[in-house]
Amino acid sequence: MYNIDRLFESVAAKGHVCVGLDTAAEYIPSAERRRAGSDAEAVFAFNQALIDSTIDVAACYKVQNAYYEEMGIAGLSTYAKTLHYIREKGGIVIADIKRGDIADTALRYAKAHFAGEFEADFVTLSPYMGMDSIEPWLTYAESNGKGAFVLMRTSNKGMRDFEYLEVSEKKRVYHVVGDKLAGLAAAHSGKCGYGAFGAVVGCTERDEAAEIRKQYSNLFFLIPGYGAQGGAADDAALLLREGNGGVVNASRSILKAWSEELKVSGGGGGADESAATIEFAAEAARRATITMRDAILAAAKK
Amino acid sequence: MYNIDRLFESVAAKGHVCVGLDTAAEYIPSAERRRAGSDAEAVFAFNQALIDSTIDVAACYKVQNAYYEEMGIAGLSTYAKTLHYIREKGGIVIADIKRGDIADTALRYAKAHFAGEFEADFVTLSPYMGMDSIEPWLTYAESNGKGAFVLMRTSNKGMRDFEYLEVSEKKRVYHVVGDKLAGLAAAHSGKCGYGAFGAVVGCTERDEAAEIRKQYSNLFFLIPGYGAQGGAADDAALLLREGNGGVVNASRSILKAWSEELKVSGGGGGADESAATIEFAAEAARRATITMRDAILAAAKK
Repeated sequence: MYNIDRLFESVAAKGHVCVGLDTAAEYIPSAERRRAGSDAEAVFAFNQALIDSTIDVAACYKVQNAYYEEMGIAGLSTYAKTLHYIREKGGIVIADIKRGDIADTALRYAKAHFAGEFEADFVTLSPYMGMDSIEPWLTYAESNGKGAFVLMRTSNKGMRDFEYLEVSEKKRVYHVVGDKLAGLAAAHSGKCGYGAFGAVVGCTERDEAAEIRKQYSNLFFLIPGYGAQGGAADDAALLLREGNGGVVNASRSILKAWSEELKVSGGGGGADESAATIEFAAEAARRATITMRDAILAAAKK
Repeated sequence: MYNIDRLFESVAAKGHVCVGLDTAAEYIPSAERRRAGSDAEAVFAFNQALIDSTIDVAACYKVQNAYYEEMGIAGLSTYAKTLHYIREKGGIVIADIKRGDIADTALRYAKAHFAGEFEADFVTLSPYMGMDSIEPWLTYAESNGKGAFVLMRTSNKGMRDFEYLEVSEKKRVYHVVGDKLAGLAAAHSGKCGYGAFGAVVGCTERDEAAEIRKQYSNLFFLIPGYGAQGGAADDAALLLREGNGGVVNASRSILKAWSEELKVSGGGGGADESAATIEFAAEAARRATITMRDAILAAAKK
């Protein structure tokens, strides 16, 4: 069984939210941060509390490698522990690593992230070097059901620099990537109808969304760009198919929901953030996740 | 002072070889591997010996992150220690990480690899997401002289999938990447005339090499593809400029030179590899580095 089938079922049961654990120590209530022995420990405790509070309302989690590498070896221990904790609780985790390398090197990265201490259910990959930087990871799709989301058309402004280049009439670089991925998905297809490997497609370019969804019907999408980057529930819903086929990532709006709630309750004058507890942060994260889940579910039904 | 100026001087003094420390435990003589407490420790001891034996004949080192991540936290400790050891000895180290992410995430990756435990002199970056995945790293070029090599036209077969796509007459995706990098190099230029950030250009496509070198005269090249992938000294020399402007990577041919030497001395019947020492491996690596250095120097003079 491919993990994409598990993810499909998780979306059907719990909605489309992918909780992005891009957890910087400064997102943690300061009293809790001080109480921990180190920032790396504080981040793990915070992640645990947020995972506990959202496990039944989130489709999956995405853990951004950069936020942990920044803290060095101790941070990477927290990274490993976070992946393990999610999987132990029966959750699904995407390691946001955007690796892209070839041949033997790709196989070693695959071993690093699909087995051992850093084992995840899915990874993100960058396609620049070509399909020989993607295909080695498929070994683990066949042996262990592992999956990947390959960068196709991202949600940042810079995506216009290269992804968006036109290579022929109405065909951009990202379409060529998508075509290759659709071929891969056809050859390695889950029972749910989506390929073991999907694509990263941002919800920031509304005009193209419906066309992309139609053109790449067998690709499951990991969808960034929601919230701060400008994508709304209606935009994200255009990238879904029959109520499934994609998860929508949100990071800071969930991780820092506690801070936003305090600002609102403080009447704009700024409540006392220093006294916030980790329990309050976890509850606020749950509320933010449910609000987002319901907004996307409603948009998907339109 | 940008690190690119240091690298330029190092090439002038020591030639063009970049020793690739893609050190897998299985490349180490088996007696030495067994003697170590763990594979991670064996790899560090092996790296140390090879760095000691090549520091005066190699321009720089490239440490491939994947081979260390594969070994988990212990492997990443060896990764950190290897970077530190090279820098402590006055060497120059390129962290081959091929990261590519945007905004705050890019800044956190930059902090991870340009400061703290994993500090390197240069990194490799992947441009797929656009220039907003490259530019955040420049902060450290200005504050600490750090440098990067951005994937432009790589040496693998898959480079034809996307890098090679034609976006207009005679202009491929990799040219568009190169043009952007040339602009960046002009705005952040070292005393040596090359930009703080250079490009990865493989020496496997001989036909295009001279043109690329001419077109991107202010980009310093990190050149893969030498040896096993088919590039010869003459091919690599086409990517140099006035005897400088590039470093040529070799990994396995140097790391496993000890094994090759034993095969030859064993008359094809296979010598006793199990008895090889780390000292012999380090000496063989030095001989392989010198041979490669001299071949490229001779080709560059033609």
